[in-house]
Amino acid sequence: MPGKLLVIGGAESHDAGDDEILERFVLLAGGADANLVVIATASESPAEREKEYAEAFHRLGAERVTPLRLESREDANGDLATSALERATGVFFTGGDQLRITTVLGGSKVDSALHARLAEGMVLAGTSAGAAMMSSTMILGGSVATVSSASVRTGPGMEFLPGVLIDMHFAERGRLNRLLSAIAMFPHELGLGIDENTAILVDGDVFEVLGRGTVTVIDAGQARDISCPSVDAGGPIALWGAQLHVLPAGHRFNLTERMPMRRAEEDHAH
Amino acid sequence: MPGKLLVIGGAESHDAGDDEILERFVLLAGGADANLVVIATASESPAEREKEYAEAFHRLGAERVTPLRLESREDANGDLATSALERATGVFFTGGDQLRITTVLGGSKVDSALHARLAEGMVLAGTSAGAAMMSSTMILGGSVATVSSASVRTGPGMEFLPGVLIDMHFAERGRLNRLLSAIAMFPHELGLGIDENTAILVDGDVFEVLGRGTVTVIDAGQARDISCPSVDAGGPIALWGAQLHVLPAGHRFNLTERMPMRRAEEDHAH
Repeated sequence: MPGKLLVIGGAESHDAGDDEILERFVLLAGGADANLVVIATASESPAEREKEYAEAFHRLGAERVTPLRLESREDANGDLATSALERATGVFFTGGDQLRITTVLGGSKVDSALHARLAEGMVLAGTSAGAAMMSSTMILGGSVATVSSASVRTGPGMEFLPGVLIDMHFAERGRLNRLLSAIAMFPHELGLGIDENTAILVDGDVFEVLGRGTVTVIDAGQARDISCPSVDAGGPIALWGAQLHVLPAGHRFNLTERMPMRRAEEDHAH
Repeated sequence: MPGKLLVIGGAESHDAGDDEILERFVLLAGGADANLVVIATASESPAEREKEYAEAFHRLGAERVTPLRLESREDANGDLATSALERATGVFFTGGDQLRITTVLGGSKVDSALHARLAEGMVLAGTSAGAAMMSSTMILGGSVATVSSASVRTGPGMEFLPGVLIDMHFAERGRLNRLLSAIAMFPHELGLGIDENTAILVDGDVFEVLGRGTVTVIDAGQARDISCPSVDAGGPIALWGAQLHVLPAGHRFNLTERMPMRRAEEDHAH
């Protein structure tokens, strides 16, 4: 059975007793028996990020935590890297710049190994840039200005989670217009705006929301009209009749049916 | 026929040749024959705001522009104020703090005079705080954090435009979650998020979008489910199946039917 994905909107709490997102990652990866790998390639300070997450995961009961430093494509094609991943039950990607992840890892042996391990049941987690890169198309940057093709830049992501476009730090950085810009241009993708200290846990085609904030789902698949000027011409985009869902912790969403589901704890009552 | 409302999301351009929103206000109020009144009560620097708008309106061809300084309820109940409004063809409210407008003007003779003049066909315009106060319920403040009852504070506005909740500087200040919080609690109100340098011109139950940005309409009237913890308990709100529309300049929206309309220039083609 393919493994689960934990996609975190950034700035997840590391405080003891308030770190349910990281705790869930450790538990899913095997708890005390977990074999965790931290990849801080996106970050400009990888040593600090590796230390930070190793401490958090140790505190949460994981004994084996290996920082896997990948700074070049040579690293990402090396035997050391792939052998580290062979034994991993959970891999965690830190934040930083998502373009660092694709340029260093994209198409490498590590890329293949991650997909293979995920298919075998490993847990793959990422926060911020490590979350953005999980989709087949990722948001590279953009502005909070007008809903327009100029307001967002996209490119191929690492393709762990197809059919969605993920934006993170969603409420905190006011990214509605940048996500709307991308969704209006590519309405076949489902927009997921994940707040800080909030995550989705993807299991097959269902995700569940964890954490303190909300996940904003924008679905323009059934939109009645979209008017998008050419990329060269630019100018604001019109979008009529997108669906919007706000999902706090415990809420689940079916990605295939594009529908929210009753909360897990209510299942037994029905 | 009741007059038009021009509701501006803040930071409208004053640059010659790029000031279509202010130009529209002057034209609607009579152009060279306009008799304009500027009310800067919301602002902490009313003299500066009065000067700024008087200059802009003069440049756009209006000869008569009267700053009406209302700093106290005594001012707002004075004969000077009501006689200034008797002749006004257009009134402009500047930005600042919307609570200043209600505390100084609410229930005063100026309040009554503004409603009376509007019913007689005057144009009423407001930007930023001057826009927020126009609705029957206005947003007083809030945070961009979680969608929750704690994230927004509302109170009665000046009631020029019933049935809506207006948020301004919408994209620029990332106010989706604060507007969603209010709309999830009060889904009978229609949410209007107006970007900077963008406005809606309301004529009866139809508005048209002007300016450079977009207006985000959030309609939770047909939402399938809303779960809102009590105000005392707090915590994130769930909202399933709100409708979202993004409307750039030229787009029109019917407030009674809660539906976007084809653009004005397309009317003749159909």
